[in-house]
Amino acid sequence: MIVDKAIYAGGKRSDIDGDISDAFDLARADGDCFVWIGLFEPDEEEFELVKDELRLHPLAAEDAVSAHQRPKLERYDDTIFVVLKTLAYLDETSDIEVGEIMIFLGRDFVVTVRHGAGNPLGPVRKHLEESPELLKHGAASVLYAVCDEVVDRYGLVAHEVEVDIIGLERAVFDPGARDVTADIYSLKREVLEFRGAEDPLIPVLQEIVKGRVAECGGTREYFRDVLDHLLQVDGQVDAHNELLNSVLTAHLALLGKQQNEDMRKISSWAAIIAVPTAIAGIYGMNFVHMPELKWTFGYPLVIILIASISGFLYRRLHKNGWL
Amino acid sequence: MIVDKAIYAGGKRSDIDGDISDAFDLARADGDCFVWIGLFEPDEEEFELVKDELRLHPLAAEDAVSAHQRPKLERYDDTIFVVLKTLAYLDETSDIEVGEIMIFLGRDFVVTVRHGAGNPLGPVRKHLEESPELLKHGAASVLYAVCDEVVDRYGLVAHEVEVDIIGLERAVFDPGARDVTADIYSLKREVLEFRGAEDPLIPVLQEIVKGRVAECGGTREYFRDVLDHLLQVDGQVDAHNELLNSVLTAHLALLGKQQNEDMRKISSWAAIIAVPTAIAGIYGMNFVHMPELKWTFGYPLVIILIASISGFLYRRLHKNGWL
Amino acid sequence: MIVDKAIYAGGKRSDIDGDISDAFDLARADGDCFVWIGLFEPDEEEFELVKDELRLHPLAAEDAVSAHQRPKLERYDDTIFVVLKTLAYLDETSDIEVGEIMIFLGRDFVVTVRHGAGNPLGPVRKHLEESPELLKHGAASVLYAVCDEVVDRYGLVAHEVEVDIIGLERAVFDPGARDVTADIYSLKREVLEFRGAEDPLIPVLQEIVKGRVAECGGTREYFRDVLDHLLQVDGQVDAHNELLNSVLTAHLALLGKQQNEDMRKISSWAAIIAVPTAIAGIYGMNFVHMPELKWTFGYPLVIILIASISGFLYRRLHKNGWL
Amino acid sequence: MIVDKAIYAGGKRSDIDGDISDAFDLARADGDCFVWIGLFEPDEEEFELVKDELRLHPLAAEDAVSAHQRPKLERYDDTIFVVLKTLAYLDETSDIEVGEIMIFLGRDFVVTVRHGAGNPLGPVRKHLEESPELLKHGAASVLYAVCDEVVDRYGLVAHEVEVDIIGLERAVFDPGARDVTADIYSLKREVLEFRGAEDPLIPVLQEIVKGRVAECGGTREYFRDVLDHLLQVDGQVDAHNELLNSVLTAHLALLGKQQNEDMRKISSWAAIIAVPTAIAGIYGMNFVHMPELKWTFGYPLVIILIASISGFLYRRLHKNGWL
Amino acid sequence: MIVDKAIYAGGKRSDIDGDISDAFDLARADGDCFVWIGLFEPDEEEFELVKDELRLHPLAAEDAVSAHQRPKLERYDDTIFVVLKTLAYLDETSDIEVGEIMIFLGRDFVVTVRHGAGNPLGPVRKHLEESPELLKHGAASVLYAVCDEVVDRYGLVAHEVEVDIIGLERAVFDPGARDVTADIYSLKREVLEFRGAEDPLIPVLQEIVKGRVAECGGTREYFRDVLDHLLQVDGQVDAHNELLNSVLTAHLALLGKQQNEDMRKISSWAAIIAVPTAIAGIYGMNFVHMPELKWTFGYPLVIILIASISGFLYRRLHKNGWL
Repeated sequence: MIVDKAIYAGGKRSDIDGDISDAFDLARADGDCFVWIGLFEPDEEEFELVKDELRLHPLAAEDAVSAHQRPKLERYDDTIFVVLKTLAYLDETSDIEVGEIMIFLGRDFVVTVRHGAGNPLGPVRKHLEESPELLKHGAASVLYAVCDEVVDRYGLVAHEVEVDIIGLERAVFDPGARDVTADIYSLKREVLEFRGAEDPLIPVLQEIVKGRVAECGGTREYFRDVLDHLLQVDGQVDAHNELLNSVLTAHLALLGKQQNEDMRKISSWAAIIAVPTAIAGIYGMNFVHMPELKWTFGYPLVIILIASISGFLYRRLHKNGWL
Repeated sequence: MIVDKAIYAGGKRSDIDGDISDAFDLARADGDCFVWIGLFEPDEEEFELVKDELRLHPLAAEDAVSAHQRPKLERYDDTIFVVLKTLAYLDETSDIEVGEIMIFLGRDFVVTVRHGAGNPLGPVRKHLEESPELLKHGAASVLYAVCDEVVDRYGLVAHEVEVDIIGLERAVFDPGARDVTADIYSLKREVLEFRGAEDPLIPVLQEIVKGRVAECGGTREYFRDVLDHLLQVDGQVDAHNELLNSVLTAHLALLGKQQNEDMRKISSWAAIIAVPTAIAGIYGMNFVHMPELKWTFGYPLVIILIASISGFLYRRLHKNGWL
Repeated sequence: MIVDKAIYAGGKRSDIDGDISDAFDLARADGDCFVWIGLFEPDEEEFELVKDELRLHPLAAEDAVSAHQRPKLERYDDTIFVVLKTLAYLDETSDIEVGEIMIFLGRDFVVTVRHGAGNPLGPVRKHLEESPELLKHGAASVLYAVCDEVVDRYGLVAHEVEVDIIGLERAVFDPGARDVTADIYSLKREVLEFRGAEDPLIPVLQEIVKGRVAECGGTREYFRDVLDHLLQVDGQVDAHNELLNSVLTAHLALLGKQQNEDMRKISSWAAIIAVPTAIAGIYGMNFVHMPELKWTFGYPLVIILIASISGFLYRRLHKNGWL
Repeated sequence: MIVDKAIYAGGKRSDIDGDISDAFDLARADGDCFVWIGLFEPDEEEFELVKDELRLHPLAAEDAVSAHQRPKLERYDDTIFVVLKTLAYLDETSDIEVGEIMIFLGRDFVVTVRHGAGNPLGPVRKHLEESPELLKHGAASVLYAVCDEVVDRYGLVAHEVEVDIIGLERAVFDPGARDVTADIYSLKREVLEFRGAEDPLIPVLQEIVKGRVAECGGTREYFRDVLDHLLQVDGQVDAHNELLNSVLTAHLALLGKQQNEDMRKISSWAAIIAVPTAIAGIYGMNFVHMPELKWTFGYPLVIILIASISGFLYRRLHKNGWL
Repeated sequence: MIVDKAIYAGGKRSDIDGDISDAFDLARADGDCFVWIGLFEPDEEEFELVKDELRLHPLAAEDAVSAHQRPKLERYDDTIFVVLKTLAYLDETSDIEVGEIMIFLGRDFVVTVRHGAGNPLGPVRKHLEESPELLKHGAASVLYAVCDEVVDRYGLVAHEVEVDIIGLERAVFDPGARDVTADIYSLKREVLEFRGAEDPLIPVLQEIVKGRVAECGGTREYFRDVLDHLLQVDGQVDAHNELLNSVLTAHLALLGKQQNEDMRKISSWAAIIAVPTAIAGIYGMNFVHMPELKWTFGYPLVIILIASISGFLYRRLHKNGWL
């Protein structure tokens, strides 16, 4: 599906009314303008048009239609092909949803292909169109704006993960809370998926920042800013991964502690109740000659004895923290 | 065993009827065609023919007959020798079966040697013969097609491992399920074997993509596609390995939790049953002066007392989650 | 907020009374002096003045106003932009507070921007003004002095962390101490944050020490000293991280040991008390023909028997360490 | 001790009858032959002869007499000095025994010095003498043959370790087997020692394969084969190390599971036996008015009641898997 | 404190009687001799003399007076500044004591500054003076001799650590031994400190061995020998670190095993003692119609019954290993 198409000259947008081909020809003729086509999950037929116009390598075209690529930057003759993973945090399930954006970048055109849910590019386009000084850098400014948006979203997702981890920490260190082992594990899974999305993007941006991608020469400082943000996210993701391991081990230690305390409490009560049983057993023996049995106050004395011993045990166990 | 042999010119196949030597001579004479011999677990004698024709280095020839090589790319004079590990997932046992494919690649010939079960090359050959535009790239296109097939299978196996891990997660987090420690461990073993097969292939493909293997110059973009897929699989395998460690630790934590809950339940019942024993013991004492014993309703009152205390304990323990 | 502003020539300070612009012009005209403006959490308006004077790149200007950057060194035309993380240890909560210092360094000016609590730069300025031989190295000497101060503080914080770890070790290996799992975990978190602040500074200083930052050419030996100190802190932080993992595992082991000892003690007492219950039960049976029941000394003999067995058990269990 | 000495020319051996010096002179004069001296744990005196003849650096000479070197390759003027660790698996104790082979390699001589048990070099020499086409490559062929033999043995030891690990896995996952914690740990120790022997050999062989050791120029393809085998062993050792960690964690999990099952079984029986005790206690009370006591079938009824409850408990606990 | 001072020419020592300055002038004039000043924990005043004579950079001078540097090699104009950590193993406490040696090395002088306990340099000087052929290499030979001594001591300390680990292993795998968790942890701490001392020395020696330190050109082979030894120690320290982690995990597993065995033994005895209690309870019931009570041999029969059941339980539990 073609979502939007326009031609940009000197930082200003003009809609493409007629055929895409004409727009491409126009852009090619005039060195200072570029075409931006935005596609959403195109089928092969829809993509055919663009593909022919851009004379794309069949492998790149194949990648654009079917999603599930790694983040990467590839050069095919005059076209740069960039794949980005988009992330979105779903509040209801604490899940991270992964989408994909592919970008074909040439001197005078840029084609963005979006797959799956996640970051819509509409706002990016709108923001760009309001920043003519950025648009003047040509097609590369679109690549920058998309990367910037995607990495900003990474930052938001990393923040949500941080919030989740703090919640898990609270549950782990609160004796009354429900068991969160499964939640810790499932967040660990999300973090690994997160890392799979952001980590391979680092060398892509480093390539650009180091100036090895001529098309982005004039915008290197912008990409450096994005890379910087990405490295920050990357550090957070690594820390999150390590924290989740630690929180699980801490959980193990606290479970052990809890079990020991329970065992102490249980056996303290068992001891307190075992005393009357044993004493009563003794005075339940049927010996003929047991003088205490005939004492007038034998019974209350034994009850007092039992109560005293049990009471003493209770205070003693309470004092050393078992009860 | 010679499985298939043919000569390919301009993207079209012709069978080799006569002697292999003649076909090789023909290919050598005509710069635009190449011979493809497919072998399956050849013995030394069978391989002798090919070896002489290709003037192979004795070490390479030895490697081809006995399997158990590491994935690698080696250059001997004019011949490239590539070893690939093939993987197949066995549904019945959840085992990963490892096979091997060796490829000798020259300017005008390609010899594929397959060992063990796993990916048959028949379909690869058939698919290639239906893609003359690919075949036109010469012998290197065969290497590409085999690598592509092998790495595609890696992806399928990685998917099966993912499915297995999800199953194990479900069993770990389901209190009623059987213990899966042994399954987690055995999948860990499979994943390590998987990594041993795919990891050393990365530098092999990187060599080709970086253009250091002249024979594959025209197909670099195809190999880049395979490398890309391989890197994706590699990331999955690493994540699987890490997930399996985490799932085992989560399993440990849940076992501790389970044990604590069992202990609480058990001792709750022990407490409930200890109360009647203790009280009955007291009224079983043989003191002469125990007025309650002579009360008309002494017995039912004690029974009610016992029931009340036990009932109170039950409700109390039930409320704080021990029972 | 402009905290301080001055012009330094030949190692001597003169206050800037009039407009900043004039001072900048003066510094630019006279090759041997430089302007130092100190800002604290400037808003965009306050920063506007400086930004125009220095002709800063909009991205760098944006970074300076909003904090939360990674430690980094960036070059924009004639300006070096350095971001440092400052750390302060809060005694009351054992927390590490993170602040930020940004530095814009040119041939004839230096602008320091401080965000958040943490290291004030007043003492740094004062110390510098008392070291004219250092100030003679020009604006770079300010960057050095700030880095030196920041890294010195890292060393102090690392020392406090070390003290905390020693305290945790003591608590872990002291059987009577309260559970410190949560403290270990929270210190682990602080150490990860510490690492996030100091680790990315290493390549920044290495850049300078290797002479790739022309502006700091004359002070390379000073920066090497700072880098050296930073590497020492970095090694400590890594060791702290590893120690905290080990202390948690040791804690787990000691919990297991403690639980086992408790269990032994509990069941020893259970055994000692089970003996009188069982024996008394036997003599509580109502058989008509139980000769012992009629013995004159039957009762004291049984009491002695019970006491002997219990005493024997106690001594035996005490000897093999269970009690 | 001089084990063997010979001069090899054109792939053929001639014994050295007279003085070693003369043999060396002969080899030096005739560019196509080389001397091979084999020593076993020489004392300083014995080594003095060779040392002077080869004009060895005093440090290299010192290394050769005292063992306990790291695997390494060093160049002293015209001599290459290589140290290899030999491994042997002792079946009786499952221990890995470490020995050492040092090799001094020049253009026209090779001196092998063997320390400790392990791979004797006799068979290597014999095998080489039967492969004149290999011997023709000169002294370097001896280095190759020794490396090949040593690395082959690594493969055998790695196989034995694999067998041991499989045995440990079986014991860990078999509930009836004895505890193998100590065995796992001791195998872990062996594997670390194994890694200490084989890992530093990798860069040594890489040096040779990359052609940085001129003396081995003509045999690079042979060394590539050895390196390949070594890398395979290295991968196995790494996998073994990781597997042993996992097997220990799995062991921990299974111990926890076992303990929980035991606890459930134990407390089930405790519950079953607590029931008759409590009921019998009630009917042992001495109340005057307990009508059941006078029933003719009171006693058998209570026995039936007790048996029923215990039986019900047994079936119930059996059904939910506790018993 | 100046410990020793001498001038060395052609491998021979002459004492410096007069002023140090004169000695330095003499050494400078005569290209073939060098001055060696040995200091022990000098205060600033004492160091002032040397500092002026050597025209040291103020930062290097500051480092020399205050200890607590990282091992490093720095170049200041014509002077090389090397910091080494010295280690000493204290038998009584199994602690590792850390000291420091700084060395200023120029073409015609060497100043050694020692801090803290640990390796005295007297024996090094004496050994050097007895090796004139080594001393002929000039001032660099002193650096070599000190490094050699320091690294030799590392080897000794590593050996002591190995001995300690073997002791801990023995204690862990011996069921009767005291708990060594705290000892394992404290040795882990020592090993981390050890690594902090030896690891940063590796790049220092590599610099020298690669020939990037012109002053040590003639002694590179000697330094290669030291580096080799250091790498061996480094490998041991890494293995020790890994072993200590494993020994702690094995300790955890054994604790779990021990606990399970204790629990089985305890509950076995509980079961054996619960039987007489239950049976005696039944015959303690006060039913009027309990025929067994009136049997002449009722009592002995019940005693026999109880003994039989308990005996049967004992044998059964003993056979399946619980008792």
